[in-house]
Amino acid sequence: MLSLLRRSAKGVAEACGPELRRRFCASASVQAPGDSTLQANRRHPRALSTHNHPVVVPAAATGTVTSREESREFMAVFPDLVRDLTEAGRHQDVPDATKWFAKVLQYNVPGGKKNRGLALVFAYRMLAKPEDLTPENIRLAQMLGWCIEMFQAFFLVMDDVMDGSETRRGRPCWYRKNNLGVAAINDGILLESGIYQLLRMHFRDKPYYVDLIELFHDVALKTSMGQSLDLLSCQFGRKPDLEKFSMKRYNTIVKYKTAYYSFQLPVALAMYMAGIRDTEMHRQAKTILLEMGQFFQVQDDYLDCFGDPEVTGKVGTDIEDGKCTWLSVVALQRCTPEQRKIMESCYGSKNPTDVAQVKKLYEDLGLPHTYATYEESSYKIISTHIQQISRGLPHNLFFKFMEKIYRPSSNIEIKYIK
Amino acid sequence: MLSLLRRSAKGVAEACGPELRRRFCASASVQAPGDSTLQANRRHPRALSTHNHPVVVPAAATGTVTSREESREFMAVFPDLVRDLTEAGRHQDVPDATKWFAKVLQYNVPGGKKNRGLALVFAYRMLAKPEDLTPENIRLAQMLGWCIEMFQAFFLVMDDVMDGSETRRGRPCWYRKNNLGVAAINDGILLESGIYQLLRMHFRDKPYYVDLIELFHDVALKTSMGQSLDLLSCQFGRKPDLEKFSMKRYNTIVKYKTAYYSFQLPVALAMYMAGIRDTEMHRQAKTILLEMGQFFQVQDDYLDCFGDPEVTGKVGTDIEDGKCTWLSVVALQRCTPEQRKIMESCYGSKNPTDVAQVKKLYEDLGLPHTYATYEESSYKIISTHIQQISRGLPHNLFFKFMEKIYRPSSNIEIKYIK
Repeated sequence: MLSLLRRSAKGVAEACGPELRRRFCASASVQAPGDSTLQANRRHPRALSTHNHPVVVPAAATGTVTSREESREFMAVFPDLVRDLTEAGRHQDVPDATKWFAKVLQYNVPGGKKNRGLALVFAYRMLAKPEDLTPENIRLAQMLGWCIEMFQAFFLVMDDVMDGSETRRGRPCWYRKNNLGVAAINDGILLESGIYQLLRMHFRDKPYYVDLIELFHDVALKTSMGQSLDLLSCQFGRKPDLEKFSMKRYNTIVKYKTAYYSFQLPVALAMYMAGIRDTEMHRQAKTILLEMGQFFQVQDDYLDCFGDPEVTGKVGTDIEDGKCTWLSVVALQRCTPEQRKIMESCYGSKNPTDVAQVKKLYEDLGLPHTYATYEESSYKIISTHIQQISRGLPHNLFFKFMEKIYRPSSNIEIKYIK
Repeated sequence: MLSLLRRSAKGVAEACGPELRRRFCASASVQAPGDSTLQANRRHPRALSTHNHPVVVPAAATGTVTSREESREFMAVFPDLVRDLTEAGRHQDVPDATKWFAKVLQYNVPGGKKNRGLALVFAYRMLAKPEDLTPENIRLAQMLGWCIEMFQAFFLVMDDVMDGSETRRGRPCWYRKNNLGVAAINDGILLESGIYQLLRMHFRDKPYYVDLIELFHDVALKTSMGQSLDLLSCQFGRKPDLEKFSMKRYNTIVKYKTAYYSFQLPVALAMYMAGIRDTEMHRQAKTILLEMGQFFQVQDDYLDCFGDPEVTGKVGTDIEDGKCTWLSVVALQRCTPEQRKIMESCYGSKNPTDVAQVKKLYEDLGLPHTYATYEESSYKIISTHIQQISRGLPHNLFFKFMEKIYRPSSNIEIKYIK
């Protein structure tokens, strides 16, 4: 479930056909959004249809670099980070350990899509006063972006050990390299420690230094509490406890385990860097960002089951792992007592026949359609909330994030119409 | 190796016979300590002989409570800590996770001897100005003491998973409870997060708040680098790499993995609380405390092999685990090529015959005698360094710590004279 944002979007746009677009436009059963939402949708048509007609974001909002340039510049900072954490002079008496630390960083930190780190840099460009957008400050924002990437790497290394996963980002999970096994736990701790070392090196003299540290601490606690809740739902990986699979619990797991660190953290850090400490502004941003995180995880869960591995870049195993997912929760809400028996006997089983039975049940229950409706509805609600932002945060910042995450997946269509 | 201070001292004093005392007094082959050391030893005779004639520590130094009362008072703060971290109102939407967090805290934090936490309170009483020794400040010191205990619990939970240990503090390791397995990793993260939550709740308005946070961050990095080095020495638990077993490497592992957090951390935190930020004072304290940590780990390694399980409370498995210990390093320094073959074929094996061969080799090489000599020598060197403290830190603070750790173990005698 920590896989948020990790799936490749490659090929998604290309495969989006007219059938899917018609379905989305026709989904009338969503929650009444109110006038302001409609207006919002007109001004910022959803990514589905805007994908071919992109929203024009003002140059001031994106800065002078394009997204690809931004990504390249961001990557260019990574070697400095490794040097900062392993340079000669620091821990001179443990050269083997510092060499190892460098390896841990190289393998686990830069290999992803870096969406969280880049989101921070993007948000900082949108939020900072023009006179503050100096090369030094952009570089600081990039360094802080890498801190989120390290935070993510820390949790992914640990998560993969706990889940016994095979691959991550198309390569063997770290704990499976060098026959590391559970010894990888210590590397997770190293990655986490690295965050605070970097903060200290680069932000110690900033008035917002303590805000950054406290936010990382706070989000680390929330993420691990979300993980606890998730582990309790599947009895520590042994067997899913279907009694615990409620939408309320699902939403809470997602909020704690994923949404805080993936969506709130980058923007809140950028806000602090831009000198924004106003509690109400942080609250408004958080509300919207947690809603986005929520949707994003539902999408992730959907694609785990109905996504095309060719497109998503991975074979989903949520059913086999007995995860508390959006699909399983909705299925349990809707199933007859007979159908529930299928869930009880097959959910969490590695047997391909059992897995196929669960997928069949999901389809029988119309979950692909429900998902499409949910996607549309959630898009409208979040748009409304963005429009309602009243404390000076730029609406475009949030619409830009929307654009990134609300992408139609070809997989929806493929499975939906079959 | 993170077992520092965890062994029971029960019965140790009683079993200390005249033979052992004579040996220590007779060990003339130790490094020449110089006059000041001799003077130090006269003023503060080593714990071995002072155990029956305790050093009288001024009442002002120990405060008004005895050690047992101190321990009781310290324990009395623990329920408040659990309430702070799990109280109603905090994370109201994840009651299951907060209940779980309470269980994790209860099982893993208060069950040890609490020497590190108590050391902090003791040091604070010695270092604070008399007018600052208010009940509120003592309680704060106790809370900070519990933060170290949580730090220790965090590393022990993780360490036990990595080592595949069976028991900890006389009970099953946490990861073996409730069939938790690797899911226990997340509980380690919860424990670590708890530290920073407590610091924020209780120290946020203190001028030394950032000093405390940074010290915990710094020591966390050092401890995990020590663990890395240790894991690299035994190729992540697969097979010991005897080529890497040098005294230099051993000393570095001990310093990083154990001495910083067990010895420097409590005193440095107490110094910050007492308003001491002077870099030279911190440096002087660190030098001595790391030396003590060094000795303590050597003692721990010695007892792992030659200690009586009845006395130490655990059956040592360092040989089976192929750990880079003081005994193995000295053995490799001294052995003939023939004897080295024994190490190469038997060290790191679970086979009792192999283990017995290694123990026999240690005895053939006279390691129990070498240990006794080392203990005496190290005591003298540390005493000298305490005497050389020049920046106003109370010498008694350090001598009191010496008294606690330099205890003769009955086991030395039992094995030594057989």
